[in-house]
Amino acid sequence: MTVSDRWLLPDGVEDILPPLAGQIESLRRDVMDTCQRWGYQLVIPPLIEYLESLFTGTGHDLELQTFKLTDQLTGRMMGVRADMTPQAARIDAHTLGDEGITRLCYAGHVLHTRPHHMLTGRTPIQAGCELFGSASETADLEIIALMLETLRVSGLPRVHLDLAHVSIYESLITQAGFDRETEAAVFDAMARKSVPELDQLLGDCAAGSAGARLRELARVNGGVEALEQAQSILGGASGDLDAALEQLARVAQMLKRDYPEVSLGFDFCELRGYNYHTGLVFAAYVPGHGDSVAKGGRYDAIGSDFGRARPATGFSLDIRALVALGQRAYSRAGSIWAPAEADPALEGVISGLRMTETVIRALPEDAQADPAERGCDRQLVKRDGKWVVEALG
Amino acid sequence: MTVSDRWLLPDGVEDILPPLAGQIESLRRDVMDTCQRWGYQLVIPPLIEYLESLFTGTGHDLELQTFKLTDQLTGRMMGVRADMTPQAARIDAHTLGDEGITRLCYAGHVLHTRPHHMLTGRTPIQAGCELFGSASETADLEIIALMLETLRVSGLPRVHLDLAHVSIYESLITQAGFDRETEAAVFDAMARKSVPELDQLLGDCAAGSAGARLRELARVNGGVEALEQAQSILGGASGDLDAALEQLARVAQMLKRDYPEVSLGFDFCELRGYNYHTGLVFAAYVPGHGDSVAKGGRYDAIGSDFGRARPATGFSLDIRALVALGQRAYSRAGSIWAPAEADPALEGVISGLRMTETVIRALPEDAQADPAERGCDRQLVKRDGKWVVEALG
Repeated sequence: MTVSDRWLLPDGVEDILPPLAGQIESLRRDVMDTCQRWGYQLVIPPLIEYLESLFTGTGHDLELQTFKLTDQLTGRMMGVRADMTPQAARIDAHTLGDEGITRLCYAGHVLHTRPHHMLTGRTPIQAGCELFGSASETADLEIIALMLETLRVSGLPRVHLDLAHVSIYESLITQAGFDRETEAAVFDAMARKSVPELDQLLGDCAAGSAGARLRELARVNGGVEALEQAQSILGGASGDLDAALEQLARVAQMLKRDYPEVSLGFDFCELRGYNYHTGLVFAAYVPGHGDSVAKGGRYDAIGSDFGRARPATGFSLDIRALVALGQRAYSRAGSIWAPAEADPALEGVISGLRMTETVIRALPEDAQADPAERGCDRQLVKRDGKWVVEALG
Repeated sequence: MTVSDRWLLPDGVEDILPPLAGQIESLRRDVMDTCQRWGYQLVIPPLIEYLESLFTGTGHDLELQTFKLTDQLTGRMMGVRADMTPQAARIDAHTLGDEGITRLCYAGHVLHTRPHHMLTGRTPIQAGCELFGSASETADLEIIALMLETLRVSGLPRVHLDLAHVSIYESLITQAGFDRETEAAVFDAMARKSVPELDQLLGDCAAGSAGARLRELARVNGGVEALEQAQSILGGASGDLDAALEQLARVAQMLKRDYPEVSLGFDFCELRGYNYHTGLVFAAYVPGHGDSVAKGGRYDAIGSDFGRARPATGFSLDIRALVALGQRAYSRAGSIWAPAEADPALEGVISGLRMTETVIRALPEDAQADPAERGCDRQLVKRDGKWVVEALG
């Protein structure tokens, strides 16, 4: 091992330096403050848990994304969290155990075994809000509104919002009654939006069958016209499907009224990343970036895996990725340079200034230092026996 | 695996719930803001690194404390950080590479394989400041002063501060020239302050020899009188020792002048936890708690292991442990309850209020909810066609 090898960080792992680190901290605070002003209370779930509880109610994708560790105290396997939403659901279902509405928010590092977002590598900083105890559409709308508000705070007032409903695909695939292998192949082709593969897999299905409807649905995405197409493809197929489409239409209408600046789209085969979701799901996009900048939706099943069925909806986003988009303005006031001189009066002035300002004290090694290079725009100087702040000469 | 087993968290791992989580966030912000106003710039080191770089310049203790992971991309071993100070040193030595003074601060979770602090278990929230590029006593004093300031912010204006100097023990043990086994036994007995064991190990050493001085030194601790005793035991033994004792005396004098409310002590065989330190070290204590609440000191060697020798000093503390001490006051304003009613005027009022206040919106399930139980002390009501905030009835 040479010295230079020691310096190398693993792929997708980075040092976050000034001023970027300060921008991330600033956005993290503003996002958390926004969530708290909407009544979401901060929780700090643990970095590690036993694997069983980390994966409860989630799915295979999360398991592949999770780093595993051995607990030296018990010999049991633990994992480093790859997603904080299931942790919040565990806290709601078990630790808090309230019957009514519970609103929680969180922000922290998660770890992924492989990078799955261009902008953040394997150590995203996940922040999110979860609303437990309400199965109402009002709850879904509150979560979408809060997500749009946090994106506005992040410098992204205009986003594209994709709406979908997990039960549409699930209803159709259940009705189709494929064997496991075909079902997995269809899921995979749907997730990759591969129309030719779906044509091959589903080409033989009778017109009007669930398989044929799936095949047609894969071709549908876009704005309000897509919703109408989906309604004509799926109309009357089942009560569940009708209800899901009606809900999408209602939610779209309300969002159009309250957030006219947000463009809406529908994507009926968006399945990637919705591991544990059960109802209305949504993802926000900005031009030029293939990955969503925030996403979420309804997941009414995780709680029941922890012994308590609780309706739930929420969203999460990656603070690191949002800062990388560079759409937010950060103001940073210049600092004040203070000389090394030992003088009790100077100590007093520095203490007073530090209640609101940044004061950098010169050290013996700083004789040749340039205060401007250290981010200072002012300095403390003695004039007529008094210490005063002056602009750098 | 029964449902209830899934809920169990590993020993020393916890969910941090409201309101505790909010108190931790509040102290974390205030500590970071304090560090930044002293000119320390925030960095966010990664949660994981290759083992070689995590352990460079540190020591065996840190290795035992570190959870290991396999990097699936390269097959190399990585570790979850157990201490952020060596990461900051790596960032200074390699990533930033500045020649002058660099001041860095950080705050984040670290993981320990075994709990080593009663109040925080295996997932402490470490915050700290590191000052690179100055070998001066002024730098040591700045770091001690900033540590005392962060403890004041944490509600601990009066602490006991233990001062020590790593080179005292190191000088003597080198002079003594013991074999490896004896050296390890002496280190162990010193760290546990076991006078009988040291008597047995060092009883045969000639009067005035380094071994005899070590044995006498183990009996010395306390206030200023301890420093005088150490000076009489060690006087003239070597130039290094004299210089170390003189530095302790000077630093103590300056601290007494500037921080008369802080009680000072000297502990010449405090070796635990100073893995990579090379000079003046210090630890702050509060009554009733055996573990230090903050600690730090000089470590001039880590940087050279990364290819660039840089003098360094710093301190760190555990935000979780400080909040657990319960000495800090947290004010939390009550929230405002808003009815579920769909009314554009109400939406506007809520948006306005949320710029500064917490507004909790009722959901359809909240018909029987008690707003006071949700932390509200006011509510939005319609009076003469206008929405106004009133105290809860």
